[in-house]
Amino acid sequence: MAKIAILGATGYTALELLKILARHPQAEVTALTTRQETKPHITEIHPSLTGQFDLCCENLSAEEVGRRADLVFCALPHTASMEAVPQLLDAGCRVVDLSADYRLSDPGVYEQWYGHVHTDPTRLNNTVYGLPELYMDQIPDADLVANPGCYTSTSILGLAPLLASDLIEPNGIIIDAKSGVSGAGRSPKLGTLYPECNESVTAYGIGTHRHTPEIEQILTDIGGAAVQVAFNPHLMPMDRGILCSMYPRLKSQKSVEELLTVIRDFYADQPFVRVVEHIPATKHVAHTNFCDISVRLNRDQLVVFSATDNLIKGASGVAVQNMNLLLGLDQRTGMLPC
Amino acid sequence: MAKIAILGATGYTALELLKILARHPQAEVTALTTRQETKPHITEIHPSLTGQFDLCCENLSAEEVGRRADLVFCALPHTASMEAVPQLLDAGCRVVDLSADYRLSDPGVYEQWYGHVHTDPTRLNNTVYGLPELYMDQIPDADLVANPGCYTSTSILGLAPLLASDLIEPNGIIIDAKSGVSGAGRSPKLGTLYPECNESVTAYGIGTHRHTPEIEQILTDIGGAAVQVAFNPHLMPMDRGILCSMYPRLKSQKSVEELLTVIRDFYADQPFVRVVEHIPATKHVAHTNFCDISVRLNRDQLVVFSATDNLIKGASGVAVQNMNLLLGLDQRTGMLPC
Amino acid sequence: MAKIAILGATGYTALELLKILARHPQAEVTALTTRQETKPHITEIHPSLTGQFDLCCENLSAEEVGRRADLVFCALPHTASMEAVPQLLDAGCRVVDLSADYRLSDPGVYEQWYGHVHTDPTRLNNTVYGLPELYMDQIPDADLVANPGCYTSTSILGLAPLLASDLIEPNGIIIDAKSGVSGAGRSPKLGTLYPECNESVTAYGIGTHRHTPEIEQILTDIGGAAVQVAFNPHLMPMDRGILCSMYPRLKSQKSVEELLTVIRDFYADQPFVRVVEHIPATKHVAHTNFCDISVRLNRDQLVVFSATDNLIKGASGVAVQNMNLLLGLDQRTGMLPC
Amino acid sequence: MAKIAILGATGYTALELLKILARHPQAEVTALTTRQETKPHITEIHPSLTGQFDLCCENLSAEEVGRRADLVFCALPHTASMEAVPQLLDAGCRVVDLSADYRLSDPGVYEQWYGHVHTDPTRLNNTVYGLPELYMDQIPDADLVANPGCYTSTSILGLAPLLASDLIEPNGIIIDAKSGVSGAGRSPKLGTLYPECNESVTAYGIGTHRHTPEIEQILTDIGGAAVQVAFNPHLMPMDRGILCSMYPRLKSQKSVEELLTVIRDFYADQPFVRVVEHIPATKHVAHTNFCDISVRLNRDQLVVFSATDNLIKGASGVAVQNMNLLLGLDQRTGMLPC
Repeated sequence: MAKIAILGATGYTALELLKILARHPQAEVTALTTRQETKPHITEIHPSLTGQFDLCCENLSAEEVGRRADLVFCALPHTASMEAVPQLLDAGCRVVDLSADYRLSDPGVYEQWYGHVHTDPTRLNNTVYGLPELYMDQIPDADLVANPGCYTSTSILGLAPLLASDLIEPNGIIIDAKSGVSGAGRSPKLGTLYPECNESVTAYGIGTHRHTPEIEQILTDIGGAAVQVAFNPHLMPMDRGILCSMYPRLKSQKSVEELLTVIRDFYADQPFVRVVEHIPATKHVAHTNFCDISVRLNRDQLVVFSATDNLIKGASGVAVQNMNLLLGLDQRTGMLPC
Repeated sequence: MAKIAILGATGYTALELLKILARHPQAEVTALTTRQETKPHITEIHPSLTGQFDLCCENLSAEEVGRRADLVFCALPHTASMEAVPQLLDAGCRVVDLSADYRLSDPGVYEQWYGHVHTDPTRLNNTVYGLPELYMDQIPDADLVANPGCYTSTSILGLAPLLASDLIEPNGIIIDAKSGVSGAGRSPKLGTLYPECNESVTAYGIGTHRHTPEIEQILTDIGGAAVQVAFNPHLMPMDRGILCSMYPRLKSQKSVEELLTVIRDFYADQPFVRVVEHIPATKHVAHTNFCDISVRLNRDQLVVFSATDNLIKGASGVAVQNMNLLLGLDQRTGMLPC
Repeated sequence: MAKIAILGATGYTALELLKILARHPQAEVTALTTRQETKPHITEIHPSLTGQFDLCCENLSAEEVGRRADLVFCALPHTASMEAVPQLLDAGCRVVDLSADYRLSDPGVYEQWYGHVHTDPTRLNNTVYGLPELYMDQIPDADLVANPGCYTSTSILGLAPLLASDLIEPNGIIIDAKSGVSGAGRSPKLGTLYPECNESVTAYGIGTHRHTPEIEQILTDIGGAAVQVAFNPHLMPMDRGILCSMYPRLKSQKSVEELLTVIRDFYADQPFVRVVEHIPATKHVAHTNFCDISVRLNRDQLVVFSATDNLIKGASGVAVQNMNLLLGLDQRTGMLPC
Repeated sequence: MAKIAILGATGYTALELLKILARHPQAEVTALTTRQETKPHITEIHPSLTGQFDLCCENLSAEEVGRRADLVFCALPHTASMEAVPQLLDAGCRVVDLSADYRLSDPGVYEQWYGHVHTDPTRLNNTVYGLPELYMDQIPDADLVANPGCYTSTSILGLAPLLASDLIEPNGIIIDAKSGVSGAGRSPKLGTLYPECNESVTAYGIGTHRHTPEIEQILTDIGGAAVQVAFNPHLMPMDRGILCSMYPRLKSQKSVEELLTVIRDFYADQPFVRVVEHIPATKHVAHTNFCDISVRLNRDQLVVFSATDNLIKGASGVAVQNMNLLLGLDQRTGMLPC
């Protein structure tokens, strides 16, 4: 039974982690942290967990976390993570970091997009990117896994097979991404108040969204040629779910069935990717760790659809996949519905 | 053309006031205030008003407001209002106050429910309660009108005819009230974040909601006997709308048709109350100044339904009704769809 | 491994049953029925089940169902169920019937509320009512279990402890019930079209809703005195969840803590009832089999809150609890998060 | 005072037409039709209109409509419209047709996309396309105006200035369009049931949506070169609103400010197009006749955003603009907030 800590237990990703861990047969949550000094019981923070955990959220040092836990989910904001992670590793923990701090391999790119100098740059280049569908071999032996962004996984999983097979142009890929509001986190902000985003659809962060370099880095690694995307995120009036509608240019004409076959073959052994005939809907994957993928041809324009639950496959579900691999378990352990 | 100022222009009630005033033939908005020192243009605050107003929100003194405007809508929080209103009156403005500060006639009751000593207590007892359906005679000559609360108007309009006709017991009236999230205002709070209240229904403020004494005061005034209600507000996953399902006890058995006739007669001359055969739905009154009322018998239990748009008939629509009466206009002027 | 059939596999309750059964360690789904003759694959009907079941929905006779399955979930509409159930029992199946056909013990009451003569009246009086929190002893040996209605369970679980302890008056209990739209089923109807019920709250079926006699029958059985309720259902703009706000009269004054203690003691051994200090919200129980209960005093008016997921604890979750008991398993088997 | 009939009064576009006409100073609704034989009162169909119209929906012949009305809004389904329109014109009415039947100038294209032979082909080529921002000169003298589709207007208004100025390539324009559910009409269908589309985002009609040839025809007319778009509609969990995110290729690099200036100049005299600095949101235009447009550069990829209320500017609002022009009135008459 692995002992697990969650740093930053008050957000939505922590809540989803706890829901999965509540039914996980090989993991016991032993520590939860917050910067609040009042030591709130976790059910005060997340009433839906009533009866499932009897733990308080404490302001713990890395050393204390290390004494209580073997493996840590670090759900802190970026920049806070790159402070905490080295200390956690020193304290003997293995870490799945859900922030963006260890996803980009180049500290210069990090500084460019995040506006901060990276304070732990030497670790960037040898941190594993925790998308098991692509990097499963590297995860089990790692001490630190950089858990992918939600838009990122959804986009990458849809495009990777086509780039790996050299079927699409690596540049000029338009991604029109649509996310539920939980992706914006649980800190009160005007833009995510209910009456602001209910009954409304809009876009944001055009040209500046920080998942852009992450998508390009991983797809370049997979495809071999420099990938360049125009990533355009939109906010949807729903709790959870991401649909990426992606418009790459085919190198040569293919049929929908040929393309689906390529994608199916690529994910043949992956339990959490479903290549489907119908157009994916976020509702079909809500509250699951599935990524549903399909393609269509709009005359000669290829359209790739990829759908996930941003809090599960886009964050906490893939984090538990990573935990399972770190612990030597089947990656499906504790996951629904497998 | 009356010159109009709005104090506290950044909230939802101010936005709805501006939408109505944009089409009002006899009112010109000449001043908007905010405590922010950056003088934001009103369309930065409310992009939906683009092209309709060319005004900045300024931190103005009461004297300056008095120089620019004849009539002021005071959309400040409670306690801020009772500081501003005496100064505005001194500056020669007539005021429609949308806060709770002048609604209760007894400063002791105010202190009990709001937790503050009232600093302008002598004015309480002779301030007009701005529900034109009940107090139309007193409004035209007033300098200060206390605009009613949203739950309050909706509850009162449903019950007043039955109390005035002595058909129901004045005590033990259960009100199960259901409101959209805009009723909680536009300040970012955890409880009104989209992912907190979307796909959820809950109650709050049981026994402590401050609209309770307001409902009781007005209904006691109308009915002649001391009214006592159990007011139970609930939060609904929608932007706007209030449905009050009210459960009074009939003094003697009546048919639905007899009860509807009493209510219809009571509101015979009121353009904004619709007594309907069907059960009201908040959607039927959304974006209008209507209050829809109907009744049902559940065996021998009377059920009174009353529905409004909390931002219009529950706040800014009735405020413009009051403004129209203060200006000697037909109360429907500028209002939809009349 | 029990062999399971679902009759009427196209609706929302069937979908939720299948989601639970997909992770159930002791149950295998072997037959799905529909009246459609096209034998659609279950993933055409419910795309979210892709990869989890490889079964088609067929128009099977009771005999054929009996050959394929040991236990049947009958998710047919009322009147269709009372035709099918006797044949299924004859074919050797044990049955959990999710319709209303076997819930009322008196065929006269059934006829009065449902408008049909019951064609299997002799079975009514000895069918077990499948609410395990109240009737757990009778379920394991039954061949037929009448699965409760969603509003019904939610209301009963909140009120039963107070009636069993003689703390509240058995008559005049007002229930203001609020349900998500999935409770209305999956057949296309104008009233449940998205643009009709989104951004709207209304009531329906006042005095005529068929869950009324069911609530009264069970609470009378529990409390010993004739219970009479005024049941008032409301439609909420959300997918799933029921909140019942209930207003009984206390026989003598009690504190909130005394009342919570009574309810806690009553459900001491029940894993799916959570007696909580905070006011329940439907979101806290969504996608779980929990029923959250709390109480408040609004001056001297008791308010009992009870919240469930109408599709899980209100239908398919309790159905699997019943299945588990019929199979001699712990009732939590396959259920989240226990 | 013009006498107005609406054919097909039971849908959402008819409801919005009636709401606008209720406040229109120069129009009186004199006839409403339905194929139902029960002559329902319009407030039975649309309870929100209670007190505003006292008319029944009748199954009227074209001759009878001609006797009662000068101008007809034909809100029938496609194919029904091309039967009715010639009769209405013969009966002396002027017609604004809200169906697709008269929008395409080539009967072959109509047959290809709609799957029906056009039965009134000779009228196609000389019917005015009722988008006043582009064809205002031709509308006042017409007897028949083809009211544009909702996706169509929203897409065209965003792209027309850039094509007219030869700034973007006419082919390979990707349109990722997002619409609220009311766009799918008011006939009960599984796909638009609340629990099917709530909390879900998906796409549909990729490569087959019938607004494709309409967009291409008009933009080709405006730009002079053959326009070819990949139109990709998506369904959003909200009542109303369309956001089109459009990805054309710039012919040569331009700044955002240069592009906004071109668009502002193009619409300099148009009261219902707002060229804004911020990214449009459907909420900013909901319940108005505005189309909000802006652009962004995502590195070198141009993104054009265009937002409307699909029921107002996308259907009934533009229909009243057309009516106003047919009647010789200012196109803003009766419209909010002008």
